[in-house]
Amino acid sequence: MPHSVTRNSATVALLTLITLTSWAETDCGDAPNSPTHHLIPANSETVHWGYFSKQQAPRATVHSGDLVTLETLTHHANDDASRMVQGDPGAESVFSWAANSKGVDRRGAGPMDASAYGRGAGEGFGVHILTGPVYVCDAEPGDVLEVRILDLHPRPSGNPEYPGKTFGSNAAAWWGYHYNDMIEEPKPREVITIYELDATGARDWAKAIYNFRWVPQTDPYGVVHKTIDYPGVPVDHSTITKNSNVLARVRVPIRLHFGTMGVAPAEADYVDSIPPGYFGGNIDNWRIGKGGTMYYPVAVPGALLSAGDPHAAQGDSELAGTAIETSLTGVLQVLLHKAEDLADTPLEGLDYPLLETESEWVVHGFSYANYLTALGEAAQSDIYSKSSIDTAMRDAFRKMRSFLMTTQGLSEDEAISLMSVAADFGITQVVDGNWGVHGVIEKRLFNGDSD
Amino acid sequence: MPHSVTRNSATVALLTLITLTSWAETDCGDAPNSPTHHLIPANSETVHWGYFSKQQAPRATVHSGDLVTLETLTHHANDDASRMVQGDPGAESVFSWAANSKGVDRRGAGPMDASAYGRGAGEGFGVHILTGPVYVCDAEPGDVLEVRILDLHPRPSGNPEYPGKTFGSNAAAWWGYHYNDMIEEPKPREVITIYELDATGARDWAKAIYNFRWVPQTDPYGVVHKTIDYPGVPVDHSTITKNSNVLARVRVPIRLHFGTMGVAPAEADYVDSIPPGYFGGNIDNWRIGKGGTMYYPVAVPGALLSAGDPHAAQGDSELAGTAIETSLTGVLQVLLHKAEDLADTPLEGLDYPLLETESEWVVHGFSYANYLTALGEAAQSDIYSKSSIDTAMRDAFRKMRSFLMTTQGLSEDEAISLMSVAADFGITQVVDGNWGVHGVIEKRLFNGDSD
Repeated sequence: MPHSVTRNSATVALLTLITLTSWAETDCGDAPNSPTHHLIPANSETVHWGYFSKQQAPRATVHSGDLVTLETLTHHANDDASRMVQGDPGAESVFSWAANSKGVDRRGAGPMDASAYGRGAGEGFGVHILTGPVYVCDAEPGDVLEVRILDLHPRPSGNPEYPGKTFGSNAAAWWGYHYNDMIEEPKPREVITIYELDATGARDWAKAIYNFRWVPQTDPYGVVHKTIDYPGVPVDHSTITKNSNVLARVRVPIRLHFGTMGVAPAEADYVDSIPPGYFGGNIDNWRIGKGGTMYYPVAVPGALLSAGDPHAAQGDSELAGTAIETSLTGVLQVLLHKAEDLADTPLEGLDYPLLETESEWVVHGFSYANYLTALGEAAQSDIYSKSSIDTAMRDAFRKMRSFLMTTQGLSEDEAISLMSVAADFGITQVVDGNWGVHGVIEKRLFNGDSD
Repeated sequence: MPHSVTRNSATVALLTLITLTSWAETDCGDAPNSPTHHLIPANSETVHWGYFSKQQAPRATVHSGDLVTLETLTHHANDDASRMVQGDPGAESVFSWAANSKGVDRRGAGPMDASAYGRGAGEGFGVHILTGPVYVCDAEPGDVLEVRILDLHPRPSGNPEYPGKTFGSNAAAWWGYHYNDMIEEPKPREVITIYELDATGARDWAKAIYNFRWVPQTDPYGVVHKTIDYPGVPVDHSTITKNSNVLARVRVPIRLHFGTMGVAPAEADYVDSIPPGYFGGNIDNWRIGKGGTMYYPVAVPGALLSAGDPHAAQGDSELAGTAIETSLTGVLQVLLHKAEDLADTPLEGLDYPLLETESEWVVHGFSYANYLTALGEAAQSDIYSKSSIDTAMRDAFRKMRSFLMTTQGLSEDEAISLMSVAADFGITQVVDGNWGVHGVIEKRLFNGDSD
């Protein structure tokens, strides 16, 4: 059912609580007395695929304090359409692709005529299906947007063959860290592993059910994809060889999170969704899950918050290029902090995406704090060849120092000592361009009295 | 009491259980029927300072299965001798330094005549006080040495002014990651922060009690140290300005561990203790604590295990150059795995230091897996200018892949997928040369049944 506007059954129960707003409405009017709960289902009308854009028409208009239930879809669902697309009207509308039309044509920030040279519209220059954007009334550049993830849960398979289950795909792809450094033949190769999850939440681990080596796939437009070079290409399961004895007896702990969530950047009309930056985006930190709160510097009017790239589990580094990519639905609360109110608060001067979890503060460093300005005209291409963990660590160190000095009132000497004895720096990802290093400091350090 | 052989009071209680062996004994004889418990107190006769050496005379000779209580001292104790040296005969013997003699003359792997150009014997080329080595009977190159840390506890201050307390020093020093990237004046500067710990174990956090900026210190030989360029230089507290209002209300969680533990490398007679390597050494991973087990590839006959550089707390990256450096006593159990018994075991082919904790396996990657061979003749100097997190991540990836394939019998495709969705890569340290990245995988992944 391409282009239809229907809701996945998983969210129906929530609807009694939810006020549907007209998606394109940006007339803010007066703020209501109590928070409004909005729903943005995921379908071909509510997602943008592969890019952030300050030009994108909003799908909801909210006031500070409002709640948004946001359905998000994995862009890897067509690796196994039977398990991840079929019977799910929202996913079917997004992934629909016939000989002459696609549910969502543009996939990526690249040119629309990229099919002429073997890709597709948008060039796959950016791959994530993002739901939104959400227009936040009164948000302006210089403000900080707080986004609380109140809930995050799996989207059940729509196929009645798989009751209570859902699925995810892990692609060990050409952009993975391992790709040119393999030991077994044939090499290089791309391998997709399909994982099964319990959609009811009763089981806190996933298991692999089969894997297969990518072989050239012909999309409905007749373009052959020798590698995973364009998102949403349907995998014809008659062309692949499935190995079902994979990771037998291995339980992968669930870490539901948004791989990608952020606000629209100001620097370009279409920004590839893959490299993360000051605006958040594809940070790929598995800590951005239920109970977490993100703080983003607002770069354009209305902030234009979008989320997607949902993950069931991912390790720090996201080594092979992807997580367990699965579809999730989140409940977000959006709060706006105006620039004029930030002085002498912990958010003063915030110019990067900051995460607060129940127990930790997490700063996000990147190879370039703002690659869009640092690398000039060709930034969106050059970032892929200029990423380094070393420079990301430098950025993360500076951000952690700034965080400790600003929010805790420490001197530089205090901040440096505390970082050395109590802050943990980890490798967020080495596969997205603008590689990431996160710095983690526990909140309990500051909760007590040391006398 | 220089050169005396006395024991710290903290270990006296253990002595009833312990058989003292003659330190220089390397006559192994027959293995006893039951494990023997050895003690190596820390004093000027039992430590080597700033280097690993295959030439070092053993301080204990043990059989596989034996226990060793190992006292270790922080090389930063003289930052506040009143709190960390005075009244502790072992520490006093190690740190003693009069106009014409030192308790331990050589400090570092450098030349003995380095004092001629403003350093001291050994040049401070290597800084850690290491207790041992322990000669393991029958250990030969190709074997794997397993070292279980059964216990690890603080060494109480010997000064009766501080009952139930002990102390540690954090030096934000010239080799720190921050040193040439500071924001407050004067810069650069070295700052030492003294932390207080509860020696009884009742309190699981440390607090800062004061800090001071390093000012030139004249050692008892008359050499002036403008920076922290030689270990164990006594800080004259009449020359410094103490700031006592530091990190007020901050509680630093305790993470007792050995910053440095390892076997003697084969490649050189004296190896600077600072860069870690295949032999372990100064890995500076805070997970190497009580309940942890290290596995080292044996490189020289007898293995020659040493440990030191004890830490009360450290963050991943050890950003400022040091942890909370404090003195600790460990109880180790040593088990030898012969090369001929390794086939088809998880230890087959192990060529790096591997950590097992109660819940995790941790592989250690470095900028160079073996910098001593990779960098040739000048390896021990060049490593300091050639370290990178990027190359350490590459090494850690390869080691984690090898670990998963060897110990879990996975194919490369299974290992790559599992790493991407469940292994966490973190930055161990960026301050020791041969920078470190550790890869962590939870053991519970393999404990269950996924059917």
